[in-house]
Amino acid sequence: MGQKITSIKPSKNLRDKSILSFNQFDQSTLKEIFSLAMKMKAIATKAQTSKILTGKIIILLFYEPSTRTLSSFDAAVKQLGGQTIVINNPSELSSIAKGETFEDTIKTLEAYCDAIILRHSKEGFSEKAGAVASSVPIINAGDGIGEHPTQALLDLFTIWDHKKRLENLRGLVVGDLLNGRTVHSLLQGLSLYKNNEVYLLAPKDLRIKRKLIEKLTKNGLALFEINSLSQAPDNCDFWYWTRIQRERFTDLSKYKVLKNKFIVTKKLLDKFGDEKTLLMHPLPRTGEVDKDLDKDIRSVYLKDQIRNGMYIRMALLALILT
Amino acid sequence: MGQKITSIKPSKNLRDKSILSFNQFDQSTLKEIFSLAMKMKAIATKAQTSKILTGKIIILLFYEPSTRTLSSFDAAVKQLGGQTIVINNPSELSSIAKGETFEDTIKTLEAYCDAIILRHSKEGFSEKAGAVASSVPIINAGDGIGEHPTQALLDLFTIWDHKKRLENLRGLVVGDLLNGRTVHSLLQGLSLYKNNEVYLLAPKDLRIKRKLIEKLTKNGLALFEINSLSQAPDNCDFWYWTRIQRERFTDLSKYKVLKNKFIVTKKLLDKFGDEKTLLMHPLPRTGEVDKDLDKDIRSVYLKDQIRNGMYIRMALLALILT
Amino acid sequence: MGQKITSIKPSKNLRDKSILSFNQFDQSTLKEIFSLAMKMKAIATKAQTSKILTGKIIILLFYEPSTRTLSSFDAAVKQLGGQTIVINNPSELSSIAKGETFEDTIKTLEAYCDAIILRHSKEGFSEKAGAVASSVPIINAGDGIGEHPTQALLDLFTIWDHKKRLENLRGLVVGDLLNGRTVHSLLQGLSLYKNNEVYLLAPKDLRIKRKLIEKLTKNGLALFEINSLSQAPDNCDFWYWTRIQRERFTDLSKYKVLKNKFIVTKKLLDKFGDEKTLLMHPLPRTGEVDKDLDKDIRSVYLKDQIRNGMYIRMALLALILT
Repeated sequence: MGQKITSIKPSKNLRDKSILSFNQFDQSTLKEIFSLAMKMKAIATKAQTSKILTGKIIILLFYEPSTRTLSSFDAAVKQLGGQTIVINNPSELSSIAKGETFEDTIKTLEAYCDAIILRHSKEGFSEKAGAVASSVPIINAGDGIGEHPTQALLDLFTIWDHKKRLENLRGLVVGDLLNGRTVHSLLQGLSLYKNNEVYLLAPKDLRIKRKLIEKLTKNGLALFEINSLSQAPDNCDFWYWTRIQRERFTDLSKYKVLKNKFIVTKKLLDKFGDEKTLLMHPLPRTGEVDKDLDKDIRSVYLKDQIRNGMYIRMALLALILT
Repeated sequence: MGQKITSIKPSKNLRDKSILSFNQFDQSTLKEIFSLAMKMKAIATKAQTSKILTGKIIILLFYEPSTRTLSSFDAAVKQLGGQTIVINNPSELSSIAKGETFEDTIKTLEAYCDAIILRHSKEGFSEKAGAVASSVPIINAGDGIGEHPTQALLDLFTIWDHKKRLENLRGLVVGDLLNGRTVHSLLQGLSLYKNNEVYLLAPKDLRIKRKLIEKLTKNGLALFEINSLSQAPDNCDFWYWTRIQRERFTDLSKYKVLKNKFIVTKKLLDKFGDEKTLLMHPLPRTGEVDKDLDKDIRSVYLKDQIRNGMYIRMALLALILT
Repeated sequence: MGQKITSIKPSKNLRDKSILSFNQFDQSTLKEIFSLAMKMKAIATKAQTSKILTGKIIILLFYEPSTRTLSSFDAAVKQLGGQTIVINNPSELSSIAKGETFEDTIKTLEAYCDAIILRHSKEGFSEKAGAVASSVPIINAGDGIGEHPTQALLDLFTIWDHKKRLENLRGLVVGDLLNGRTVHSLLQGLSLYKNNEVYLLAPKDLRIKRKLIEKLTKNGLALFEINSLSQAPDNCDFWYWTRIQRERFTDLSKYKVLKNKFIVTKKLLDKFGDEKTLLMHPLPRTGEVDKDLDKDIRSVYLKDQIRNGMYIRMALLALILT
């Protein structure tokens, strides 16, 4: 193993702070997180070592299961020498079954740890936890249709890592843009930077809400809704593909039609894309990205985005807890 | 971080011992545990560090879910640098489903660890585990309507920490005194010390058993059953409130009447209590403690009792395992 | 604590390798594993310490519950200073419920760790994982009726540890020889060495397959099917008893008859066995080994086999990951 990272510069923006919403991040905070995430890559790949979370105990309180997010946070803590206590499905547990309030659960658990990473199926519960916890920061790991700030961070970091900038970007976003939490956060992130334009392609019933378009446009993001891939622009810096969510459909035959309409293949990417077009996907995927693309040099959904999720979480934890 | 605690004095009473029942503790053992728990507070708050459980593996074998107790023990081990293996609901697991006996499960698991912390829904299973395990201590983390020795320890420690004594105390205990395991242990603990008197207030059907009163009285504890709060004495050192357990009632309308009769409010505490009356509750609470009391200086149910649970468990593990 | 083991000799056969099948092992690899397992015994019993897995994160991905195997691997990692992420029943988790493929799950999880230990209910899934994972080794912890290589290792190691050889052995194997995965692996292991003979006793419907007998015989193992214990030879080096698996029977009355026919007692072992006959069982047992034998000096099913399972797994992990 190489050099040891024994300390990091205390963060003015993040130290001891809860992370409840992506709104908390400005350009300077994002730069701070991304710079440290680059160093975390070196730690995770064992080129360097760090024990900056030694002695820290982090509770992973997951009211809703999520293999990827849970494992990623768990690994992030352990990569830095910290320890975790995992609590899955606490609603089935005795104290909550006996009628304990969410607030009392948070107040109890904060006594045992240095931070709580919270996943909840209902919007607003991260805010609630943040308001209750008096001694430890809360990190939102997804609250229903609400927010999932670290997913947004990893998507932006992936673009930044490849393009070395988050401005002057042209992107295409495809899939369920109505319910896709990750898309909303990505667009919000891009709206913080200058001269970005994004083309939006969604089935008619799954288009992004007018209100959100207005808000993002007001922030300076150029958005263009298109009706078919033939309208997609050349020279996209990224394609961000998402899953059509079967669980949103009552008429499954309708789902199947839409699903087949939005499959990205190597042929498609070669035709409309570019040799520098990053192909992104937040995963899980259910057929909408052809497996032939897995080893394509432009594909970053498997290796880069997954790994970046861990680096981003390592960086965030380090900035909050040291 | 401050000073390092690298070793503790080997305990004559507790080293390598199983903790199956509160009966094992005498005044001198309690003093030893409480003194070390005070030091553990300094470790948990990072004023000091300790790695005295480094290299130790503790199995948390929970046949019955319990967020609070499980997390508290898990954190206690990790605060001292040890590692845990958590086994939740082993009855659903394959070997037990295939017909393995409880005894074989214990004999198997003891091979992998330095101690087993056992929670079981049935009374007597801690004793059974203690009889079977030949190489590691068993720590009872609650066995049905049986015992929960560390809960008793934390309640006594909380009083001791505030009052600097466990004798010459006057207390009031309210709620379900028939089924309340924590109440029985608390009274048993207080009966070890001189000149303690406790007033008992319970619904008619949930009064403490005659037999237990006789046993405790014989040990020297003065017990007074009262019928309403108006009979409560002044100058109580503590009020120990408990939950009326809904699961005990077949007639829920009866439950609702009783439940409303035993709510502690700031007004009540101001009227019958005292500025030095500790307000205690073993949690979870389900409405019987008014939230307005949460920040009252006399309330110790949220912050102190929860944290003391962890300190006590850290102290106990340290005394047993080092 | 005694001497520190800070490094081990890099293994030509095992370093960075997946362990998918017992077929991978030859005599020289087995010798390497067993020699290191002996040293691991010293570490687990605290005569020595080792932190050779410090900084390593191992994911335990168990699609099927298994207390013994899971705890044993978990403890093995932690004994050597490594950390684990346990994922139980991932099929119930969100991404898989949403339709993620097994391949994508493996590709995701390998990003977070240094090795994946996989238990699956279906044969062939370890091979599948091994083919997909590009950056970390996969260790098969049992895949349905397929293989369970570390169980075979621990059984052979137990014989080797007691007899100081794996050749010139005479053994008796009893029980369900048709479905018993552990029996098949044990016989396969013994067939790697010279002059071994094994007597096989099974109910008529649960006899070992002709094909497997032919394969093993071809490899040089002498196999003798017998119809009752009275035909068992003297001077057996080991008796390997197994469970009649109730879940294989549609007619439970038939199960009960067979079950009672294959119970090993002290009387039986004294009569047909020998003072040096090891009594082995892979556990769990469900009545087929009389409890009176638990403390018999010849019984190794409880203490030795269980502990050896951990030592073998420690050795294997060390050889693969350092």
